[in-house]
Amino acid sequence: MTFLEAIWHDIDAIRTSAPLVHNITNYVVMNTTANALLALGASPVMAHAREEVEEMAGIASSLVINIGTLSPPWIEAMATAGETAARRRIPIVLDPVGAGATTLRTRTALRLLEEVSPSIVRGNASEIRALVYTEAVTKGVDATHGADAALDAATALSRQRRCVVSVSGEVDAIVGEGKVARVHNGHPMMPRVTGLGCTASALTGAFAAVNPSPFSAAVHAMAVMGVAGEIAAEKAEGPGTLQLHFLDVLYRLEQDDLERVRVEVA
Amino acid sequence: MTFLEAIWHDIDAIRTSAPLVHNITNYVVMNTTANALLALGASPVMAHAREEVEEMAGIASSLVINIGTLSPPWIEAMATAGETAARRRIPIVLDPVGAGATTLRTRTALRLLEEVSPSIVRGNASEIRALVYTEAVTKGVDATHGADAALDAATALSRQRRCVVSVSGEVDAIVGEGKVARVHNGHPMMPRVTGLGCTASALTGAFAAVNPSPFSAAVHAMAVMGVAGEIAAEKAEGPGTLQLHFLDVLYRLEQDDLERVRVEVA
Amino acid sequence: MTFLEAIWHDIDAIRTSAPLVHNITNYVVMNTTANALLALGASPVMAHAREEVEEMAGIASSLVINIGTLSPPWIEAMATAGETAARRRIPIVLDPVGAGATTLRTRTALRLLEEVSPSIVRGNASEIRALVYTEAVTKGVDATHGADAALDAATALSRQRRCVVSVSGEVDAIVGEGKVARVHNGHPMMPRVTGLGCTASALTGAFAAVNPSPFSAAVHAMAVMGVAGEIAAEKAEGPGTLQLHFLDVLYRLEQDDLERVRVEVA
Repeated sequence: MTFLEAIWHDIDAIRTSAPLVHNITNYVVMNTTANALLALGASPVMAHAREEVEEMAGIASSLVINIGTLSPPWIEAMATAGETAARRRIPIVLDPVGAGATTLRTRTALRLLEEVSPSIVRGNASEIRALVYTEAVTKGVDATHGADAALDAATALSRQRRCVVSVSGEVDAIVGEGKVARVHNGHPMMPRVTGLGCTASALTGAFAAVNPSPFSAAVHAMAVMGVAGEIAAEKAEGPGTLQLHFLDVLYRLEQDDLERVRVEVA
Repeated sequence: MTFLEAIWHDIDAIRTSAPLVHNITNYVVMNTTANALLALGASPVMAHAREEVEEMAGIASSLVINIGTLSPPWIEAMATAGETAARRRIPIVLDPVGAGATTLRTRTALRLLEEVSPSIVRGNASEIRALVYTEAVTKGVDATHGADAALDAATALSRQRRCVVSVSGEVDAIVGEGKVARVHNGHPMMPRVTGLGCTASALTGAFAAVNPSPFSAAVHAMAVMGVAGEIAAEKAEGPGTLQLHFLDVLYRLEQDDLERVRVEVA
Repeated sequence: MTFLEAIWHDIDAIRTSAPLVHNITNYVVMNTTANALLALGASPVMAHAREEVEEMAGIASSLVINIGTLSPPWIEAMATAGETAARRRIPIVLDPVGAGATTLRTRTALRLLEEVSPSIVRGNASEIRALVYTEAVTKGVDATHGADAALDAATALSRQRRCVVSVSGEVDAIVGEGKVARVHNGHPMMPRVTGLGCTASALTGAFAAVNPSPFSAAVHAMAVMGVAGEIAAEKAEGPGTLQLHFLDVLYRLEQDDLERVRVEVA
């Protein structure tokens, strides 16, 4: 199976099995990430009450935790859902949105790293750096460093926490399982749509649900994000239409579209 | 007045009177259901604090309760708003999102059925079954049974709770007031847009605000949903553009468009 | 610098400096206001936990408080963030969504006016009236009076609270710093998109972050909203596509587009 065939194999598996992806995510992106998961072929569910997250994580195929709009009850639910997911050995994706921007976010991300042991951490360069270097400073929730600048941090985090680290940026970098991948796909307009980073985390959860290698799941997800963004950008006149075409492209994605994939693995 | 004239009469009444529809709904769909209500001509309001739901339900023309992203304070607010709505005899629509998937959702839906006596329960087949057969199992929040398979459950629920039951699926089934309607409109791409079921519940709330028969309101809402979805799908290239065109079509709907309606009432 | 050059100067400053706008806003519009801020060139961040709002307001360039879906913990966070912003003398925009509709909303808006001293209050006519005349009654969250009808209320509020008051309506009215501006831009389809008022408040926060005059910031924001809405409406077939084109237009806005601005200042 070639690299492109392996990506297509995952897409096909998602479309065929419609894995249930349990998201505890932020208010801003709930709608858009649910739509992206549905467009890809997965079954999203959002549930955040402590009273039900164990049950929901108990029937899910993967868990995506995103700390973009935190509050204390949600943090407890994230930890509880994470424990269930860890016990069931289903993949957990952590998106440490805004880590470094406030103490609450940095601490919560570090706590979840400790208690929940995510298989994959997916963030931008500032966020990943904040989880390794305590002196790092994030400006809000946007990336202020390139993915390459964060490679050292990603490598350190991957070793410390024994997880795959997926850093989005102009070039995405994925580190783990002794390998480094760089994804050169994507479009400069994508950061102008809110929550496409969160969408990347959600789709990573869908790929992880069907692919036993967290590294491959993370790489495939970023490649598909990038390709779908590129095709969508060709039709879009701005970030508003980009967001819509992106969903359409995910839904209609064909094996030939993967010819666009530009990934190096070292 | 023919059946199609009766639907048009309701649309015209909604556009003319802009009934205030009070929604206590889930985070995922708040934006899209508010937009659908506005596009149809109604006035949506979202309010969920116990401290204000009595007042808001006190000025609304109908109440829509959707349990898609529950937590304990919201459940109390739903019960409180429901009591006010019941006392004022304004229509209440309950969407038991994910009933059967977790105990919290099933119990909450059953509690609201008991305490609030909704005029209309609108859900997919799995959810409706979960409210009647305690052994039913839901896979997340998506339908896993056809509407017809749920007809027995809908009939039982309608009798037990003296309410209209509206089950969405490939063919929608509406049961109540001694009748059964089947709506054959809609498009297979619609379930790939998150929250179109929730939108159906919200629009049902708008129709119930202007039509004294909950059965007719539920049937008219599902017919309009289906027709708007079909017209939108003709222009859409995927679920992203479908969602947008759906709103445009609702906004521009003309009486002639209702010629597409395919409803059997028995 | 002419009036149009001054608007363009602000847009250019936003695009160049990407000011961090801290939003504590309602669930319905979080996604769309974040997208509008990104499309304009600002950096939005949403954060509402008491545990982090001081830190977030501590690094932001402006704070936007929107009471559209209130609950007690959010009210405390709004007050806390507002204190930090006031101490740092960064601009605060208050959107009193639904003031007059429920006691909780009216009281919260009045409390925030008292404790936080916003630089700019931006609402529709009913909401502004509710903050001045206690007998005013709002129908839900939609405007039921024209902006002109609210001019007296806006003038009174501006004097009482020493703030700029920006009232949206068919003609927008902005009062403060001894001046009154009327913005004649916009399109009748805009109120059919949920949260465009909230978007106006968010963009006002972005302009206030780069313009030292709250009055000018409020006028520039409403002019840009109106122009972008007009251009978007030319391409839109309804409120669904209007919302998307609106974001695209904000992103692509050029200096020549400002020729459409129709503002009188007296």
